[in-house]
Amino acid sequence: MYEERIKRSGMQGLITSAANAASFIKDGMVVASSGFTKAGDSKAVLKAFAALATTSPRKITLLTGASLGHGTDGTLTEAGAVHKRMPFQVDPVLRHAINEGSVLFLDQHLGESAELINENIIRPDVAIIEALLIEEDGSIVPTTSVGNTATFAAKAEKIIVEINVSVPLSLYGVHDIFSTGVWPDRKIIPITAAGTRIGTSAIPVDPEKIIAIVITETIDSPAAINERDDKTRSIAGHLLQFFEHEVKKGRLTNQLRPLQSGIGKVANAVLEGFIDGDFEHLTMYSEVLQDSTFNLIDAGKMDFASASSITVSQPCYTRLMTNFERYKPHIVLRPQDISNAAEVIRRLGVISINTAIEFDIYGNVNSTHIGGTKMMNGIGGSNDFARNAYLSVFVTQASSKNGAISHVVPMASHIDNSEHDVDIVVTDFGLADLRGLAPRERAKTIISNCADPLYKDLLKDYFLAASRKGGHTPHLLEEALSWHARMDITGSMQKETNSFA
Amino acid sequence: MYEERIKRSGMQGLITSAANAASFIKDGMVVASSGFTKAGDSKAVLKAFAALATTSPRKITLLTGASLGHGTDGTLTEAGAVHKRMPFQVDPVLRHAINEGSVLFLDQHLGESAELINENIIRPDVAIIEALLIEEDGSIVPTTSVGNTATFAAKAEKIIVEINVSVPLSLYGVHDIFSTGVWPDRKIIPITAAGTRIGTSAIPVDPEKIIAIVITETIDSPAAINERDDKTRSIAGHLLQFFEHEVKKGRLTNQLRPLQSGIGKVANAVLEGFIDGDFEHLTMYSEVLQDSTFNLIDAGKMDFASASSITVSQPCYTRLMTNFERYKPHIVLRPQDISNAAEVIRRLGVISINTAIEFDIYGNVNSTHIGGTKMMNGIGGSNDFARNAYLSVFVTQASSKNGAISHVVPMASHIDNSEHDVDIVVTDFGLADLRGLAPRERAKTIISNCADPLYKDLLKDYFLAASRKGGHTPHLLEEALSWHARMDITGSMQKETNSFA
Ligand SMILES: CC(C)(COP(=O)(O)OP(=O)(O)OC[C@H]1O[C@@H](n2cnc3c(N)ncnc32)[C@H](O)[C@@H]1OP(=O)(O)O)[C@@H](O)C(=O)NCCC(=O)NCCS
Ligand SMILES: CC(C)(COP(=O)(O)OP(=O)(O)OC[C@H]1O[C@@H](n2cnc3c(N)ncnc32)[C@H](O)[C@@H]1OP(=O)(O)O)[C@@H](O)C(=O)NCCC(=O)NCCS
Repeated sequence: MYEERIKRSGMQGLITSAANAASFIKDGMVVASSGFTKAGDSKAVLKAFAALATTSPRKITLLTGASLGHGTDGTLTEAGAVHKRMPFQVDPVLRHAINEGSVLFLDQHLGESAELINENIIRPDVAIIEALLIEEDGSIVPTTSVGNTATFAAKAEKIIVEINVSVPLSLYGVHDIFSTGVWPDRKIIPITAAGTRIGTSAIPVDPEKIIAIVITETIDSPAAINERDDKTRSIAGHLLQFFEHEVKKGRLTNQLRPLQSGIGKVANAVLEGFIDGDFEHLTMYSEVLQDSTFNLIDAGKMDFASASSITVSQPCYTRLMTNFERYKPHIVLRPQDISNAAEVIRRLGVISINTAIEFDIYGNVNSTHIGGTKMMNGIGGSNDFARNAYLSVFVTQASSKNGAISHVVPMASHIDNSEHDVDIVVTDFGLADLRGLAPRERAKTIISNCADPLYKDLLKDYFLAASRKGGHTPHLLEEALSWHARMDITGSMQKETNSFA
Repeated sequence: MYEERIKRSGMQGLITSAANAASFIKDGMVVASSGFTKAGDSKAVLKAFAALATTSPRKITLLTGASLGHGTDGTLTEAGAVHKRMPFQVDPVLRHAINEGSVLFLDQHLGESAELINENIIRPDVAIIEALLIEEDGSIVPTTSVGNTATFAAKAEKIIVEINVSVPLSLYGVHDIFSTGVWPDRKIIPITAAGTRIGTSAIPVDPEKIIAIVITETIDSPAAINERDDKTRSIAGHLLQFFEHEVKKGRLTNQLRPLQSGIGKVANAVLEGFIDGDFEHLTMYSEVLQDSTFNLIDAGKMDFASASSITVSQPCYTRLMTNFERYKPHIVLRPQDISNAAEVIRRLGVISINTAIEFDIYGNVNSTHIGGTKMMNGIGGSNDFARNAYLSVFVTQASSKNGAISHVVPMASHIDNSEHDVDIVVTDFGLADLRGLAPRERAKTIISNCADPLYKDLLKDYFLAASRKGGHTPHLLEEALSWHARMDITGSMQKETNSFA
């Protein structure tokens, strides 16, 4: 059985139940699991471990590529099974535990999250890897994501493989596994275009480390289908108009440059916008491939897309999996330290588009913390891209919750992407091109182009009063965070309901 | 005359006075000048321009590699000759003008400051380049720095050369000029060790663009001699002890990894500390070479040092210039987009050591703004290195001005290097290794290891109260910046003198 999927002879004897495999995971262990933006994650063993922890308490430190699907983080959290979690998550139950302090969370740049392991600061005891198949030599072909799996496989003491038989074998060949190695023999990453292939189709593995194989057939959690609404349509419109302007100015061609786009409805709306526009021969050098990528490939607008995972809606997933050979020549899946590598992003001149929780009048971006304290998801790859992009774009709605929240604030309550790394900010009201502008110039442009009119005068008043006080980046320290404090107390940033400061 | 220095035939006719050359610079122009950390800067033409501006007003946008020496920025500012300045400065007169808003300043990552020019966002009208000599083909050999000069030479409409006859011809060959080119043909930077040479000894120049040559003989402004005091000695001691610990743990060898060190007394003290230690075959991949580098070469402890400039004290300068052949095999000067390249810094696994103005209990670093508003110098290369380093270290004294200022604060008043990019923080009281720690763990470690005992209880109280309120990164928004506000009003962060909040 499973000869097509377990090619190494003798290894079929390792097939066991998820519960059995999970029992190899002991209290206090560091467990590293495949999974990136809900794709290619552990479907069985982590949940089985949660079940064991419910009856007999045990806790792990859990490392992944990025977020897990199927509510696995929530199930583990409810079972009290997580001591520390890194480098990213999107689960409401886990988020709550992180914010109350009962689970420790390490919010890391996704492109650097393999470093602590490569450099032996953290050593995984067990890796759990979802696989398409195991080769004769024991090497593992992953499924819909690569993430940190190659690092986990190299560094973990033991490996549990989840063979997912629902994933078609036609995925074989889409992966491009490459390791830079470690100092002093760290290699150049010789990628010079989104489509450059530099590695192998499987992750090298010492077969002796594989201790259990579990068969699964659950598909990835689907991404939500993001309907375009008026706001996302406006944001996308401003950005597409800006690209057209740059083409007219001769700074870009209508091929643009390799695109990166964060997950979410705005990013999707921007990409969908390319379907009707004059842009062609587009490429992506990104983290995640979403529905819009495949729609652009189908429309003949996108030539090639590179990423670390495929995270799509249910209908798109079906379309893809039943027809993978059609898409395979146009896409590649890489380890996240390659998809998010500073080196490649700068070399290719990526245009990065990510969503901000809020930005301030000087262009500092908060990607992670609501009100400066509560973790939303994590910095993800936003700064991997923004820091080295040719053009670093951040988008957000100008205001939300019926105007109670302004996403353009005097001072960002937490800073993940500093003013130094932000070129363009966009809201549904407009776009501000910050390139070449000093802080006082930036403030004027951001307030007049991007703020919701509800908050424009408040922002202007703040900026003028701060400017009278002076400084390269004028601020009134007593007021800088008062909007957030007000929001915390009254549920709105608007002054009418002021009860703080 | 000057046949040795002006090898291109016919070009000697371009020799003229500084005043004459400066008259080519018109009101409103963008002027790009050589100069990096006070080395290899324009000694004559910019000052002559300032003199012209005094009698007949004119203003320029001034771009450099990094800081200029000889008070040139101050002279230009006093003459009202600067509209906008980028990417870095250290001049008290200019700093004052920036902070009162009369000169606009663009504080940029030094490693990325050539990007706006390469991508035609800003176009220099005139470049002023200090040169050792001009080759037969018109290409220019720079002096004690390379900085952004290769980009300026390629992109400026016209070039004015300052031949500095005080710089010995023995410098010839120390430079390694390499351009990555621009998208879509951007090249890999094939550096795999501090000492890899990849380029040419001179900067390619279209000789038609050279409109004037000025002869100078002023040497670079000397760096201050930094005497080690008790505090810098303590900080250096903690860091050296940490390196020894890492060697014992097997994570480093006694060769360490290529070192980067910011300018200043602490960095110098750390490097000097290596002279007596067990470390050997050290290398540097840094921005600036300081006295300590040459002392380590002389002591046989350092094999090779790569940077973009040489900025040393007067005695060290003399020693170097009279004996350059001795040092030349051990050093190389590169363009700042190569010395500070993300790609190379990550590949080589650099250990970066920079000074912070302050850091907060979660490890966010302020490198630039006093009290969140007043520009000190600029971010410089700190984040180029910290963002991609193997180990990113920030040092500062725990407190200063007789305890009036704590450099460990609840929330950094400005953030240049975020928690994501900071591995180790050190003060004279101790070192905190933040690798693998979640925010709440970091706060405990930083407060107990790094804070001045004067402020320890205040920080603990803040952290405990904030933790009770909750959040992944606990903060009390109303108090987070109150220390700085208090400092602003009372001249001290200590609570006894509280008159704010
Ligand atoms: C920033 C990010 C959270 C935005 O995601 P999104 O789905 O567009 O989020 P929204 O703006 O719709 O919603 C964020 C929530 O926070 C709330 N919020 C935002 N600012 C707030 C504030 N100051 N106070 C209170 N709530 C706030 C919003 O109202 C919204 O709440 P809701 O879910 O109850 O409606 C998300 O893009 C992210 O996690 N980014 C970081 C990672 C990253 O950029 N990766 C890039 C590569 S994938
Ligand atoms: C951060 C930096 C300014 C520190 O330089 P330094 O010479 O060690 O500075 P010090 O800590 O001695 O002094 C900074 C001044 O700010 C003052 N200061 C610091 N924090 C303050 C605060 N919160 N409120 C008021 N004053 C403050 C200090 O008291 C000191 O004042 P003084 O000059 O009147 O004594 C400097 O390293 C820098 O510019 N770094 C950014 C660039 C960089 O890192 N480059 C790296 C590659 S070279």
